[in-house]
Amino acid sequence: MTKKAVVLVSGGLDSSTVLAIAKQQGFECYTLSFDYGQRHRSELVAAQNVSNSMNVKQHKIVTLDLATIGGSALTDTNIQVPEHETSGIPVTYVPARNTVFLSIALGWAEVLGANDIFVGVNAVDYSGYPDCRPNYIDAFEQMANLATKAGVEGNKLTIHAPLIELTKAQIISIGIDHGVDYSATISCYQAAVDGTACGVCDSCRLRKQGFLEAGIKDPTRYQNST
Amino acid sequence: MTKKAVVLVSGGLDSSTVLAIAKQQGFECYTLSFDYGQRHRSELVAAQNVSNSMNVKQHKIVTLDLATIGGSALTDTNIQVPEHETSGIPVTYVPARNTVFLSIALGWAEVLGANDIFVGVNAVDYSGYPDCRPNYIDAFEQMANLATKAGVEGNKLTIHAPLIELTKAQIISIGIDHGVDYSATISCYQAAVDGTACGVCDSCRLRKQGFLEAGIKDPTRYQNST
Repeated sequence: MTKKAVVLVSGGLDSSTVLAIAKQQGFECYTLSFDYGQRHRSELVAAQNVSNSMNVKQHKIVTLDLATIGGSALTDTNIQVPEHETSGIPVTYVPARNTVFLSIALGWAEVLGANDIFVGVNAVDYSGYPDCRPNYIDAFEQMANLATKAGVEGNKLTIHAPLIELTKAQIISIGIDHGVDYSATISCYQAAVDGTACGVCDSCRLRKQGFLEAGIKDPTRYQNST
Repeated sequence: MTKKAVVLVSGGLDSSTVLAIAKQQGFECYTLSFDYGQRHRSELVAAQNVSNSMNVKQHKIVTLDLATIGGSALTDTNIQVPEHETSGIPVTYVPARNTVFLSIALGWAEVLGANDIFVGVNAVDYSGYPDCRPNYIDAFEQMANLATKAGVEGNKLTIHAPLIELTKAQIISIGIDHGVDYSATISCYQAAVDGTACGVCDSCRLRKQGFLEAGIKDPTRYQNST
């Protein structure tokens, strides 16, 4: 029987690469996205497109109003998305976002009878985000095995974070090898409704730099580009 | 400075008791409830009433469509709420619910600068729910301290589960000592819109039995009672 996996997909570069990796490992993939009050809603369209193009078994979008608790430039329109590098934890950090997303993935995995969850967290580019570090993922996995039926029934639940130690350029190279079409992905924190990217936010800068370092032509559609 | 705490309140007996305990310990309380597609929506009204009557600093209701992932009698109208005791993990168990709720509480705690989260989980009456056990709470706390700014900045985040080892009768006795008005709380899995309880579901039976054992008159308004 094919093993099932829940894969968190944001519509961005990292999670699309993770989905390709999960598929290559032979998992039947169930992709999960969140409509969480984010500014960059066009990423949900990208998540749907990426899921379709990779023939996933099912794609779900869970509505979750994280803007209610505020605290991030990605959900609170009163906080500006920065256009320059900052030190420490960036204002684009959404409090406990990965924990919330992984928790809901855990719930769906339990419903599906899946023992594997894939997530595109990365400790290299997002060193300012506490919930992108390897020891966080290990702790989540440990908690998850106590939280669910799977744990009680003796099945081991595994959280796969295959990109966690890779640079953006390495991620892109792996994705290209796996046939990922990056033109369908959106990383920009403030992407326009037509899917074009601002080119100046942290996420755009990391992505641009990644393509440059990987020596691969950047397929991103930028605003104001000619 | 008064210490802030996020308290998960469902409008039920247990979480209302926890709120009274947190207040008595001197915390400034921020209560959090979820509109998660549950059948028993009148509990949200109860959560608001309980929060108001206990003078909390703020009460938030986060919308979260857990019904999207299905798998529980509490969110899926195709699964019937049982009216008799069952063995194993009950169908009223919502996959990963406590993990999801605690994760969002963690996010709000981070926004507020609170280092304390209170939750009314109970391992005695809900022995069939994996996410009500003490080792689960410990593992969540450990993960939470790696997930957030608080952990990075050296503040210890604590998950308080003061009811975890108590019987329903003990919880009720403590609540009465703390002045909890249980007539304002709703525990029924299928409460009517007017807040009356079915009297026959697992949750109603545990609650009834608790008042009986505590020797306290049950103030619950039951349907079909005369």
